[in-house]
Amino acid sequence: MTDNLDRRTLLALGTLLAASAAAPANAAEPQAGAAHMRSMMETPPDAPKVAMLVHPKMVALDLIGPMTVFKILRFDVQLVWKDKSPVSTDVGIPLVATHSFDECPGDLDILFVPGGTLGSVDCMNDPEVLAFLADRGARAKWVTSVCTGALVLAAAGLLKGYDATAHWAVADLLPLMGARHVDQRVVRDRNRMTGGGVTAGIDFALALAALMKGEEAARRVQLTIEYAPEPPFANGTPQEAGPERLAEARESRKWMDGQARLAAEAAAKRLGT
Amino acid sequence: MTDNLDRRTLLALGTLLAASAAAPANAAEPQAGAAHMRSMMETPPDAPKVAMLVHPKMVALDLIGPMTVFKILRFDVQLVWKDKSPVSTDVGIPLVATHSFDECPGDLDILFVPGGTLGSVDCMNDPEVLAFLADRGARAKWVTSVCTGALVLAAAGLLKGYDATAHWAVADLLPLMGARHVDQRVVRDRNRMTGGGVTAGIDFALALAALMKGEEAARRVQLTIEYAPEPPFANGTPQEAGPERLAEARESRKWMDGQARLAAEAAAKRLGT
Repeated sequence: MTDNLDRRTLLALGTLLAASAAAPANAAEPQAGAAHMRSMMETPPDAPKVAMLVHPKMVALDLIGPMTVFKILRFDVQLVWKDKSPVSTDVGIPLVATHSFDECPGDLDILFVPGGTLGSVDCMNDPEVLAFLADRGARAKWVTSVCTGALVLAAAGLLKGYDATAHWAVADLLPLMGARHVDQRVVRDRNRMTGGGVTAGIDFALALAALMKGEEAARRVQLTIEYAPEPPFANGTPQEAGPERLAEARESRKWMDGQARLAAEAAAKRLGT
Repeated sequence: MTDNLDRRTLLALGTLLAASAAAPANAAEPQAGAAHMRSMMETPPDAPKVAMLVHPKMVALDLIGPMTVFKILRFDVQLVWKDKSPVSTDVGIPLVATHSFDECPGDLDILFVPGGTLGSVDCMNDPEVLAFLADRGARAKWVTSVCTGALVLAAAGLLKGYDATAHWAVADLLPLMGARHVDQRVVRDRNRMTGGGVTAGIDFALALAALMKGEEAARRVQLTIEYAPEPPFANGTPQEAGPERLAEARESRKWMDGQARLAAEAAAKRLGT
């Protein structure tokens, strides 16, 4: 395959290098670019306030999917955690909160909790996290989650009497904490909106965007992120995967999901559900 | 909505706080958890080597989608850039390369380039980036991209004579640099695999996973990330959006896409395409 790095390419790169070194700086271009970027990133003063929890052992995609949608809509997105020390993610990229719990505004438009089973378990057992979520969740316009994040909302008492969903592997734990599990990709019940596992975050965020900003705004975002998915296989749900693959998947997650059950049972005891 | 932060919840949180302070540390649990996490994160010695470019003004989701798939498969994923200073992303989360260009192995299994129009434009005009990609791309088993990243591959001379795709807004620029644009979500031509805009990265990565590790392995990942997408609208492609919405979207991106055209024309001149 070395024919791709052929002489012509090398010459072309050499030319570019020379041009780049010799060319006088074009003063107008960078300014126009900077202005364009600024206007795209700017948060209007009346932008909805969004607090997205980040926590150790979280799944990055649970957050980045919805965050991408919210940022394109120029929502005022904050990443919140106890402090600003980096938290670990499944992909190995550390995330840092922009706001500590103390700095997070009291009245939010959206409170959002991502997942990551073992990270969610830690949050379900952490009184500081639960107290923060219970406080902001009681006042937020929308209380939302993706993946195993619904277990954390439920452990904070925020899904008692609500329809909800979570990652398929742990969704059956929701009723322990007073929620009704509805087997849909995105479930809305009054001001609660919860999504299934990981990739459901994109569907969740577009659905919420439509409710908050109208269908046309959500459609614009969908076109921007070219969201016309074509999964190569039909294997995204237990039903699609079939009993054999499901059994294998459950077996490989057994210890982890067992931890989630223990945390849900402990939360149920505290909540009296 | 303050009824959700009711007395019972406060009491429950109080109980948890007390329990957490009083309970003796369970020595076995954290160790089991740590071992489980380690085994999940561990990279086998024969894991495919993946270099994923990170660059200023990139779209985080372009990277995180495929990276999630590769990490679940325990591929040896490196984030590469000129140096280890943080690069900016569309969502405001800075990313830091794990390896500089110099530190990146010469022979890769996968070379991957994410998008982000203005960031891609900068890369298309940057001889250091193009030289790195041309070198590693000439030897990599798979040369891949998502979104506007295909323009960067093309500017490095890596798509001359190949079928490819890119974000719908700029895919028409590919032929300027010697590629044939094929209007599909994921396009494979020999060892090149390119995806459409942003969210196409998940479809791309699952398709590549199936080719590299077999269909069953890809299906397992798909179930883990619950990838059974349900977009709330049919608005993910220009065809779905229809002419009016497309015209509006093109107008709002006009300056940015114009920059991409200028960079593609300059690259075409260098490449002689």
